[in-house]
Amino acid sequence: MKLKTHTFVFVLIALISLTTVRAQTKDKGPWWPHPIWGAGDQAGASNWITPEKVLEATSLVKTGKVYELGQVYETGMPLFGARTYELRSPGAPTGGPFGENKLVYNDEFITTEIGQVGTQFDGLGHIGTRLKFDDGKERDVFYNGHTGDEIYSPYGLKQLGIENIKPIITRGYLIDIAGYKNVEALDHSYEVTLADVKGAMEKQGIKEADLKNGDALFFRYGWSKYWNNPDKYNTNPPGIGMEVARWLASKNVSMIGSDQYGTEVEPSSVPNAAFPVHQFLINQHGILNLENLTFDSLAEDRVYQFMFVFTPVPFKGATGSPGRPIAIR
Amino acid sequence: MKLKTHTFVFVLIALISLTTVRAQTKDKGPWWPHPIWGAGDQAGASNWITPEKVLEATSLVKTGKVYELGQVYETGMPLFGARTYELRSPGAPTGGPFGENKLVYNDEFITTEIGQVGTQFDGLGHIGTRLKFDDGKERDVFYNGHTGDEIYSPYGLKQLGIENIKPIITRGYLIDIAGYKNVEALDHSYEVTLADVKGAMEKQGIKEADLKNGDALFFRYGWSKYWNNPDKYNTNPPGIGMEVARWLASKNVSMIGSDQYGTEVEPSSVPNAAFPVHQFLINQHGILNLENLTFDSLAEDRVYQFMFVFTPVPFKGATGSPGRPIAIR
Amino acid sequence: MKLKTHTFVFVLIALISLTTVRAQTKDKGPWWPHPIWGAGDQAGASNWITPEKVLEATSLVKTGKVYELGQVYETGMPLFGARTYELRSPGAPTGGPFGENKLVYNDEFITTEIGQVGTQFDGLGHIGTRLKFDDGKERDVFYNGHTGDEIYSPYGLKQLGIENIKPIITRGYLIDIAGYKNVEALDHSYEVTLADVKGAMEKQGIKEADLKNGDALFFRYGWSKYWNNPDKYNTNPPGIGMEVARWLASKNVSMIGSDQYGTEVEPSSVPNAAFPVHQFLINQHGILNLENLTFDSLAEDRVYQFMFVFTPVPFKGATGSPGRPIAIR
Amino acid sequence: MKLKTHTFVFVLIALISLTTVRAQTKDKGPWWPHPIWGAGDQAGASNWITPEKVLEATSLVKTGKVYELGQVYETGMPLFGARTYELRSPGAPTGGPFGENKLVYNDEFITTEIGQVGTQFDGLGHIGTRLKFDDGKERDVFYNGHTGDEIYSPYGLKQLGIENIKPIITRGYLIDIAGYKNVEALDHSYEVTLADVKGAMEKQGIKEADLKNGDALFFRYGWSKYWNNPDKYNTNPPGIGMEVARWLASKNVSMIGSDQYGTEVEPSSVPNAAFPVHQFLINQHGILNLENLTFDSLAEDRVYQFMFVFTPVPFKGATGSPGRPIAIR
Repeated sequence: MKLKTHTFVFVLIALISLTTVRAQTKDKGPWWPHPIWGAGDQAGASNWITPEKVLEATSLVKTGKVYELGQVYETGMPLFGARTYELRSPGAPTGGPFGENKLVYNDEFITTEIGQVGTQFDGLGHIGTRLKFDDGKERDVFYNGHTGDEIYSPYGLKQLGIENIKPIITRGYLIDIAGYKNVEALDHSYEVTLADVKGAMEKQGIKEADLKNGDALFFRYGWSKYWNNPDKYNTNPPGIGMEVARWLASKNVSMIGSDQYGTEVEPSSVPNAAFPVHQFLINQHGILNLENLTFDSLAEDRVYQFMFVFTPVPFKGATGSPGRPIAIR
Repeated sequence: MKLKTHTFVFVLIALISLTTVRAQTKDKGPWWPHPIWGAGDQAGASNWITPEKVLEATSLVKTGKVYELGQVYETGMPLFGARTYELRSPGAPTGGPFGENKLVYNDEFITTEIGQVGTQFDGLGHIGTRLKFDDGKERDVFYNGHTGDEIYSPYGLKQLGIENIKPIITRGYLIDIAGYKNVEALDHSYEVTLADVKGAMEKQGIKEADLKNGDALFFRYGWSKYWNNPDKYNTNPPGIGMEVARWLASKNVSMIGSDQYGTEVEPSSVPNAAFPVHQFLINQHGILNLENLTFDSLAEDRVYQFMFVFTPVPFKGATGSPGRPIAIR
Repeated sequence: MKLKTHTFVFVLIALISLTTVRAQTKDKGPWWPHPIWGAGDQAGASNWITPEKVLEATSLVKTGKVYELGQVYETGMPLFGARTYELRSPGAPTGGPFGENKLVYNDEFITTEIGQVGTQFDGLGHIGTRLKFDDGKERDVFYNGHTGDEIYSPYGLKQLGIENIKPIITRGYLIDIAGYKNVEALDHSYEVTLADVKGAMEKQGIKEADLKNGDALFFRYGWSKYWNNPDKYNTNPPGIGMEVARWLASKNVSMIGSDQYGTEVEPSSVPNAAFPVHQFLINQHGILNLENLTFDSLAEDRVYQFMFVFTPVPFKGATGSPGRPIAIR
Repeated sequence: MKLKTHTFVFVLIALISLTTVRAQTKDKGPWWPHPIWGAGDQAGASNWITPEKVLEATSLVKTGKVYELGQVYETGMPLFGARTYELRSPGAPTGGPFGENKLVYNDEFITTEIGQVGTQFDGLGHIGTRLKFDDGKERDVFYNGHTGDEIYSPYGLKQLGIENIKPIITRGYLIDIAGYKNVEALDHSYEVTLADVKGAMEKQGIKEADLKNGDALFFRYGWSKYWNNPDKYNTNPPGIGMEVARWLASKNVSMIGSDQYGTEVEPSSVPNAAFPVHQFLINQHGILNLENLTFDSLAEDRVYQFMFVFTPVPFKGATGSPGRPIAIR
């Protein structure tokens, strides 16, 4: 019952075009307050992760085998735009020898866009939209109507920081588009269609009706093949577009993920639009996005459904999180 | 069988005094090669995390309730020594508006001793011992005989980096010493005795015989009460000493943890010794240590056994990892 | 002649109150275009540093004695607000030994608000004012009408970066207010009056008529006495107020400086105003400000006029610069 | 008189081969204690900068024209090895608007190997040599016998930090090798000979006998032409070798500099040697080295002798310094 209502609400949202919205105030706008989570919520679709959901996920574990879905963080990995990742070891050792037991210890010193490098989990303060409000002022609006004036600070976001997101323990589905297409990797800029998604699911034996609120859906494009070739990796990856994004929102997923840097196809097929899937899912729906994954070991074992665990590191006021996502089967 | 042999070997190690060891070469020394994991191993006690162990852990989940055991990372939290933690938000927003959809995005820029601040997981490159080798040279020796000359680099450890540690999914036990003592928090410098540990376990209904190889044991001292008072928090916390450390090694735990900055009592009751428990467990036995936790919600619900999940972030060459440890019941 | 005109123009500016201004567009506002340096200028009062000015400065050198006016940069020095200063040494050594000559080398790794810590030189992108423009929009306006939309970037200022400032080689005057008052240090929040300035100058034998365009004027409050006591140092220092600031602008100085963190008295005697002297001198007049100096050796030698040299480090897009200012006598 | 003795001592040092030295203790070794500056000195050849030297330099100023010899610091500039340079602007603005005067302010946040990027001044803790001492131990030995055990720290050098170097105000000579050879830039790996140096000096009208203790000598190879082409710039630049280095030491220069990243030719013509000129001049003689300069404006004006000013920024414990070197004519 409840599910049906939720789905209906979301489909409605999905149909609303940004250009036709009228009311745009702090209290009410095209995507706020959130129809399910309500005004003030900062956890977005991680709210789907209830004890019941955790039990559902745990029940998928049959063998105890753990699959690592993340990449190792290191200088030289592909980085988007002008971001950096640097690690230094102070001293050698950093401290000691101390005491008669001559203990020594080491630290490391890192400097990086911590939530937006390598395997990265986009939080709800990462993506926003500049809108003109009814009072004539332009504001950057984030998930659930939180505005730039409220959240911006030079020392981390004052709202929607990643620490507000619940640990993600849910049912994960891998949708292996590259496998479905019988290619090692999709082509640059190939937009994955809903037919592709449904075809892959059918091939893998996943029924659409089995999807439940709060599941996590992952797309394998085969793009991690280019991880060690940053120039190619960073150039116009394949991915989903708005067609699949609308379907995902209608399914009430908690999060999505893929083996490229942004999950969505680049450039978008929506004319003159910048990352519309990010905007639609993260900003408008509060659905989280985990990027730069690798699914080769899952694909090899033909594991398409699993307990998924990702625990975003609660760096206060961060826009995202690094981490080590795993699938357990 | 196997367990008994292992235990025996470890007890032997525990009895060997550093000062009486003779052989000390790259190939052989008082604690290397590791008697179970063998020469060259870099995963230490995380090797206990097998599929069987994961199944054991998963089987503990009954309600799906998730308990957060970590602290939020922020400027002003207690930091050990001269470490730092700083986060800045570049621009406001960092990028945009882009496209006709006027998308904006935010990043954050962090600079910190990433694996050794806040809730921190000590890896196997963190703690070592300076020893004189048979060739007359002094070397810093880490877990399993890896030496400073082999692992030190200004750009991260060349061996024993945290990326070598397996995700920790195991059975977790909370041993609530503060609860056993009926205090909110133990006193400064109180050394938890083995009798305390066994008493608390008995009170909580945990049988020593139920402990299995690879379990994770956590000690609640009540110290997280002072998290917001860094000066007090950082001054001579209570904790376990060598008596309990030897018992832990004999139990073949995968890891330990506590609600203070180092798990062990400060100062040590071993004369003139610096962090001997760290040295004994991490350096000599490869047993991992998660620090700066909080167990208040577990204690309140009297949850003493749980599925424990911690996935160290694979920052290549790092000595430790931040993260978001959870207990699932 | 020229001098007189300039002075006249500046006095006019000084009399204009922000609240009464009407025209506020990109092209014209209360303090832009700059009446002397003209539209588009980004060098401000460092434009006074011409070859003639350098010759004037050099002619003051009689003995060749060098006085250091800056502080050493180190962790633990007084820092304003939430700024940080951290330095790490990667490795030990960072590199080597290399070659048969067994060369080793060291680096250091720094992370800090580089232009706004320690002895710091405020550039023209450091201070601005939020103003409502004639088109109804609010903009942050900096020196010479450069606006926030034009200069802000997450990767450094796009205009008014410190690299636009000329090296400062000019005649420097020390005005020793603490000496004039016969105190080691002025009191917290003491506002230095114009009478104090003129009294000190008279006592030191400096005639007001001798001041020329582009000279640098330094104020000694004795505050560097508290440099090693950051809490006291950072609390409500004495300094000049708007009375002296207006006089300084009328003298067409290239820059000012002092032995506290902002040169101006805190809090200001102007009701509800934040750093009005910064705003008046830097933002409106393009006059630069060097903070956290020490004049004790100059004062001891009673050196009140000297060749002054400060060469801002051209970190592209930075708001200020660290450095090592010197006086040569 | 004194000069002759000094020169003699240095030539002696220059002739001593590292391989034939016997005494190597903390108190005495092939290059320590320093024959002129004595045991314990940490200022090296900056000691030549006396008031008399400053007067000599000042007396060269005739027109007051200032020439900038440094490069602007920015992401994308040539960096040696694994060093980095990153600048971020926290917020936009960083602070404000504050007060009724609506003041805003900006900071910047930098992370970099501060003394070893861009225009960089090598201090005396930058270069050392690993030597076996008479006690059988290997030590890294720096200028004047300071050893690694004494100076290494994870938080900056404990001795020989750049803050010990005096501001450099001296007579500067430009020796335009590219101009002498009638080329825009010397070839990769071209080793500048002493004959080249003397030929260029003769062409420029500089007499060798005019050189005095403490002068600064700069070599123009034309290499700054490739500053915007980091790959080429960083590949095997031309430069001086040991022949010229010995001559420079015999002249008792305070410092040298050039328009490439290390002043010396790469690779060295000394077989199997790594940066022998650095080792000889900095480590053994305490002569400082300023790298990544540009002399095109000096060369264009045919200015070969000038007042040279470089004030290393006193970052405590740093191995070098950024800055803005200038020539004044």
